[in-house]
Amino acid sequence: MQRPSRRQVLAALGLSAGTTLLSGCVGSLESVGQAEQNPAPASPHARPHWTYVPLDPADVARRAYALYPEGSCMYAVFGAIITALADRVGEPFASFPIGMMRYGHSGVGGWGSLCGTANAAAAALGLFFPEEKDKKFRDGLIEELYGWYEHTQLPHYRPANADPTKEFAHSVAGSVLCHISVHRWCEASGSDAYCPERKERCRRLAADVAARTVEVLNRVTPARAARTAQHALLPDTKKCLSCHDQRELADVAARMDCRTCHTFKAPHP
Amino acid sequence: MQRPSRRQVLAALGLSAGTTLLSGCVGSLESVGQAEQNPAPASPHARPHWTYVPLDPADVARRAYALYPEGSCMYAVFGAIITALADRVGEPFASFPIGMMRYGHSGVGGWGSLCGTANAAAAALGLFFPEEKDKKFRDGLIEELYGWYEHTQLPHYRPANADPTKEFAHSVAGSVLCHISVHRWCEASGSDAYCPERKERCRRLAADVAARTVEVLNRVTPARAARTAQHALLPDTKKCLSCHDQRELADVAARMDCRTCHTFKAPHP
Repeated sequence: MQRPSRRQVLAALGLSAGTTLLSGCVGSLESVGQAEQNPAPASPHARPHWTYVPLDPADVARRAYALYPEGSCMYAVFGAIITALADRVGEPFASFPIGMMRYGHSGVGGWGSLCGTANAAAAALGLFFPEEKDKKFRDGLIEELYGWYEHTQLPHYRPANADPTKEFAHSVAGSVLCHISVHRWCEASGSDAYCPERKERCRRLAADVAARTVEVLNRVTPARAARTAQHALLPDTKKCLSCHDQRELADVAARMDCRTCHTFKAPHP
Repeated sequence: MQRPSRRQVLAALGLSAGTTLLSGCVGSLESVGQAEQNPAPASPHARPHWTYVPLDPADVARRAYALYPEGSCMYAVFGAIITALADRVGEPFASFPIGMMRYGHSGVGGWGSLCGTANAAAAALGLFFPEEKDKKFRDGLIEELYGWYEHTQLPHYRPANADPTKEFAHSVAGSVLCHISVHRWCEASGSDAYCPERKERCRRLAADVAARTVEVLNRVTPARAARTAQHALLPDTKKCLSCHDQRELADVAARMDCRTCHTFKAPHP
């Protein structure tokens, strides 16, 4: 494992300069009405710096795969990134309550809504780009990750102990929603939604999403010049939104792939 | 504002007994493969106790409404609960990086997937019931909140400065997905998805969800006897799942209202 540099150690102690952009959570508590009148007790740990340092995607993928059985998809992806950072720089990552992220399993508490791996990836981006002024940039990175998630054959990850002679089914999710993502993989594999293979699919998917999130973070942190998101909306979705988003009909506030749920009969204007 | 009791102050300092259940995040970092070999530096703050203390739902609703313009829906709900706790007990809540929750706006980065208020409510439940052994109980509370969200006329909250002679449109979302929830309200109100009234709707909805989350938390914390979730699946959804969940067809891993997206032509088995 790479040893932390002096800069990383200083960053972990909240002593580095130039971290303003990445420490936007700082001070937000003070800006709330009642909190202004009743400030929380002062503490040397009240303003930790959540400064990302580049990680090894392959290591983070392995961590996510290892963590999955302890708390499922969201916990695995978020926990992989945070534990890797805790090993590199210690606090504040070492005391982040990663157990909270177990809530996101199976599309949040089993509801099949947002895939927990996608929820975790966006939560990690939120941690490192937390300010309101970061919104456009953060949304762009989420779009890059979610577009990739929707339209890529996954899972790609193979654990070290996998039988090399055995193919593992993959599928294009077409959606960041757990219900649809799981259903598409079940169709492709001929498996049911509760079998061990489906859990193995989500476990490998967690490894893929954790690695991809770290690849994106490595590219955009800390080099300001490289802070461009690679937008990933499909041409068809762009076409739908060209009328339905805020510029004309303004009746759709979403960026998910429209075709996954909607079919259009001709003539459509 | 109510002053914190001795017990609450002790809890905030991590000195109270009987908090095992609520401090499940503790130690999770140590259980990961590589983290075991490279433990993070010891810190007196490495194991904070995220112990919930009862809050005033009306106060938390006002906070959520006040916070919304600073970071949208997920930030407003999660931030309202955390800042209220920071005012009551200080750390570790005062240093939680609530800014990270801005990622959840408009169904995560504008994608229209899971409603940010619903994501925040579940995240708060995750923070206070973080362990794998809490899964069934935590999922039950999420189901209670999500069932209420799906099938209740909302928003109900009225800010103090609202014109009492003016009706504000409300709707039944039918879904915890932002895209559908917003669309249903736009239909009911005749508004578009990007107008100021729609933002006001989501702002009031944040107040409602924050208050409801706190009502649920107040009921189940810390009284172990009261730790029962009020399950809220619709009879029609239960009927669908009675064949499609893991006991028979096993082709659907979800608990969202099926009717919102699916229509069934007779004869359906």
